[in-house]
Amino acid sequence: MPIYNAPLQDMRFILNDVFKADEFWQATPELAHIDSETVSAILEQMAKFSQDVLLPLNRTGDEEGAKIENGAVSTPKGFKEAFTSYANDGWVGLGADEQWGGQGMPKMVSVMTDEMIFSANPSFMLYPLLSVGACMALNSYASQEQKELYLPKIYSGEWSGTMCLTEPHAGTDLGIIKTKAIPNEDGSYAISGTKIFITGGDHDLTQNIIHLVLAKTPDAPAGSRGISLFIVPKFLVNEDGSLGDRNPVGPGSIEHKMGIKASATCVMNFDSAKGYLVGKENEGLAAMFVMMNYERLSMGIQGLGASEASYQNAAQYATDRLQGRSATGVKSPEKPADSILVHPDVRRMLLKTKAHNEAARAFAMYVAQQLDMTKYSDAETKAKAADRVALLTPIAKAFLTDKAFEACVDSQMVFGGHGYIREWGVEQYVRDVRIAQIYEGTNGVQAQDLIGRKVTKNGGAFVATYLAEIREFAASMKAEWMKVSLLNSVNTLEALTTLVIAASKANADEPNAAAIDYLHVFGLVSYAYMFARIVEAASVKEGAFYQNKVELAKFFVTRILPELDARAKMVQSGSAVIMSFDQGYFTAQS
Amino acid sequence: MPIYNAPLQDMRFILNDVFKADEFWQATPELAHIDSETVSAILEQMAKFSQDVLLPLNRTGDEEGAKIENGAVSTPKGFKEAFTSYANDGWVGLGADEQWGGQGMPKMVSVMTDEMIFSANPSFMLYPLLSVGACMALNSYASQEQKELYLPKIYSGEWSGTMCLTEPHAGTDLGIIKTKAIPNEDGSYAISGTKIFITGGDHDLTQNIIHLVLAKTPDAPAGSRGISLFIVPKFLVNEDGSLGDRNPVGPGSIEHKMGIKASATCVMNFDSAKGYLVGKENEGLAAMFVMMNYERLSMGIQGLGASEASYQNAAQYATDRLQGRSATGVKSPEKPADSILVHPDVRRMLLKTKAHNEAARAFAMYVAQQLDMTKYSDAETKAKAADRVALLTPIAKAFLTDKAFEACVDSQMVFGGHGYIREWGVEQYVRDVRIAQIYEGTNGVQAQDLIGRKVTKNGGAFVATYLAEIREFAASMKAEWMKVSLLNSVNTLEALTTLVIAASKANADEPNAAAIDYLHVFGLVSYAYMFARIVEAASVKEGAFYQNKVELAKFFVTRILPELDARAKMVQSGSAVIMSFDQGYFTAQS
Repeated sequence: MPIYNAPLQDMRFILNDVFKADEFWQATPELAHIDSETVSAILEQMAKFSQDVLLPLNRTGDEEGAKIENGAVSTPKGFKEAFTSYANDGWVGLGADEQWGGQGMPKMVSVMTDEMIFSANPSFMLYPLLSVGACMALNSYASQEQKELYLPKIYSGEWSGTMCLTEPHAGTDLGIIKTKAIPNEDGSYAISGTKIFITGGDHDLTQNIIHLVLAKTPDAPAGSRGISLFIVPKFLVNEDGSLGDRNPVGPGSIEHKMGIKASATCVMNFDSAKGYLVGKENEGLAAMFVMMNYERLSMGIQGLGASEASYQNAAQYATDRLQGRSATGVKSPEKPADSILVHPDVRRMLLKTKAHNEAARAFAMYVAQQLDMTKYSDAETKAKAADRVALLTPIAKAFLTDKAFEACVDSQMVFGGHGYIREWGVEQYVRDVRIAQIYEGTNGVQAQDLIGRKVTKNGGAFVATYLAEIREFAASMKAEWMKVSLLNSVNTLEALTTLVIAASKANADEPNAAAIDYLHVFGLVSYAYMFARIVEAASVKEGAFYQNKVELAKFFVTRILPELDARAKMVQSGSAVIMSFDQGYFTAQS
Repeated sequence: MPIYNAPLQDMRFILNDVFKADEFWQATPELAHIDSETVSAILEQMAKFSQDVLLPLNRTGDEEGAKIENGAVSTPKGFKEAFTSYANDGWVGLGADEQWGGQGMPKMVSVMTDEMIFSANPSFMLYPLLSVGACMALNSYASQEQKELYLPKIYSGEWSGTMCLTEPHAGTDLGIIKTKAIPNEDGSYAISGTKIFITGGDHDLTQNIIHLVLAKTPDAPAGSRGISLFIVPKFLVNEDGSLGDRNPVGPGSIEHKMGIKASATCVMNFDSAKGYLVGKENEGLAAMFVMMNYERLSMGIQGLGASEASYQNAAQYATDRLQGRSATGVKSPEKPADSILVHPDVRRMLLKTKAHNEAARAFAMYVAQQLDMTKYSDAETKAKAADRVALLTPIAKAFLTDKAFEACVDSQMVFGGHGYIREWGVEQYVRDVRIAQIYEGTNGVQAQDLIGRKVTKNGGAFVATYLAEIREFAASMKAEWMKVSLLNSVNTLEALTTLVIAASKANADEPNAAAIDYLHVFGLVSYAYMFARIVEAASVKEGAFYQNKVELAKFFVTRILPELDARAKMVQSGSAVIMSFDQGYFTAQS
């Protein structure tokens, strides 16, 4: 049975020492009522819930899985009780505005509670996550009546939400969806079509499910400019909020997946289901992206959560497992063998994961702070923060999940053969976290988003301000060794950015050929920046806890950061070789 | 339903053009009866069997899994019929000596048929693989009577074999096993103990199962010098080869695993089971290593098989999947979207896997030829080849499987969300191939074996002769670009070898701290060598098939080989930071 202990001390260090949250909150009127003590109490409450309620349901949820019978989906044993408790304690609406019944906590707080849930039970987390995402899209684009009707019920956990985009033939390319929306006489629409990969498309956790559905009206322009967003409730909602008739929308089947098996991934059939337009016709994609961008940071946190949980289990196993002797002399003569922690290669795997977790947690906090700035600051700061969030969202999603997958694979390796056995639970982290690299836009798509919309499209302007901030921080640093590594990595990223922008003008295939390696360089620079901030914050403190943060940064610089130069060379190699093969080459029988 | 077409043309190219097998066979008296036409016919026969019989059982075998009921294990539907057909056609004994009923084919042939089976159905392959491994240990260490009694029955597929090493508390460190062997009066032994992770420990494919078991006699010295090897048949065998009583050995349970679910992985209980000593007391580990070294190359081929199969499916999916448009202009105006093969990043993933497959196939063939030399050459050549095999076995096992795992993960990524769905079959490649990095000595243990026994222990002598061979080949090369890359990589490996040997004298922790990164540098150098040989062989031929081999080598040099310098830096960073943390740091709650 896997263990999990929420890393509260690490979280507080990042929040209070590295990001000095109290100062930020004090300086922000809407957040001035929040202080680190209140937040600490919230974290402790969620730590308890994650460890005591959610963790025990993770393995059983994987073995049992979500099930469909007679057109209705049931979640594994214990999920309904856990969700009810979660909702009753107000967790669904933790970050929601108080006018909708939420607790008004900033993202800098929910980023940590989300991590705990993702560590303890990622399948569970996906149910409220999609609800909150749906609320954010509604909050941005729905009418006042729609907000009043739906938001309080979803934030309270009485109802839940989904996001219905993908169709069998259309995933990344939403411009070619076929789901139709035919206007009814009463102003509503009749929605017909099939959506796939719908997380929480049906389940038994809530009384109602509010689907947000992308569809095309009869006269819609072709492509992504002709997509509208609709609210399609499972049960129609009367004006007073009570439930009416069942809407003709339901799960055709659920997917059999590699992991996150307790999360119901549904094929949803809409058969002239009644839908209500959100915002204006043909402007649905923008609304959906509000939701999607929120999910993308969450996917990064899913990665971090898995990586943290897998680390804790691997570290405990390595400590307990006696096998062989230390090369430098017997360490535990009273035992038949030494702990495998004496072997440098085992430590290397653990430290790699630990370093990832440390940097990822700081980076998620950084993005969370920027998100809070987009909501609570003055106009100029809001605009700057929005650009920064746009730039970093693909890193938060793709880099954090790529590194988290590596980390979970390494943790599994520490277990040797036992890592391959389901009962130990560490192979589940690998299977579960794998989806985070794939959904909400594959990491390849994130890399293209970064290098395309976020870099080349604005001539590198977003990158320039980010690197200026890092250089400014570096200039203030005391730890010379960290500063040198950081500035070297910044210089490399800057040079690559210039190179890619120039190359893209000559050949439109260049950005995509460079995309994933450029994203990894960018991610490594960002982690170096985070470690630089960690080193500066830890260096002014005393005690082993802080000293180890500095040592871990040294490990990062010597054992992880060197990948940056290799990735840079790959970026520099360009698209010519890749594109030199005929299309037929790839499938030619050989 | 996944596809698989055996890459016969690629195999023939490696065998005939790169390694000029005919010349080697003609020059080797014991192999002079073999020619490339006979081999080609064998390959075609196995291609048909793999594609038509084994492939369709791969998905169903994964879903059904091996089962245990009333102390007996059954394999999934169709496995018994497939195995009977496989055995009847003589495949179990393909590489066995004719005196034991085998077909006497060299490893250079079975390396290719093994790859096909591993592509089509890795779980199936493990049953005959363990049988052949057991035969090899018996062939080297058993008495003439034992050989006559067991080898023909196992090679014919009437019986099968296992390898019983691991115990719950003892995996990598076999010195601490507890299984006891008490001498009986008739010269046999009573074996008692529990073994875990026993592949094919019980099943319904054969009439009898011959377990090779490591155990300790009462007066055995402590540690790995006190381990003996025993034959423990499921049914005792009469002198005439007929079956006698059931021996008290059987499966206590089977493991629930991440993958290779159709392979029965058993907990085996020995309850005073009758066992027969193989060779001498306390010399069991050497016999077991005969088996283990054979398996380790096979694990590399398991990786290659999975990588090839996953590639073929990803390439087909990428060709068929229409999504988005090419950045350089619409390529299929008659279709709603272009094939995703127009996107450089999709091609990059496919080419990376294709390059791995090409180099891995050549490398496996190289090691196979060396293995054949250890069996069929003059004494001096035999000794040299044995050293080379010792040096390269950890690369064949660990580097090929690490790269194969990456490849299967990339192939899964090409499928987007569909890659996560079981019915598509590509997530199974990821789950199945993962074990190849873990069993038969984890890849971390392989890395330690390389840098310890194979490099530092002999002062780099094995490496020196290998690099001398590569430099000699490079001197003869026409393709200057490939030659330069190859020689640079050789120089880096040489320098690292010197560095690690020197460092190991000052600090015994240095080799293990460097191990995995050193192994990857070594693997990349070896792949570069293989591509150099491929380029030279392909350059003298005409046609797109050969031209594409050269292009793929260019892709390898620009997109894969740069990892070498990053790994080299990691090696150079040493053990100091890794060992600076207290043991308690790793599990300290934070």
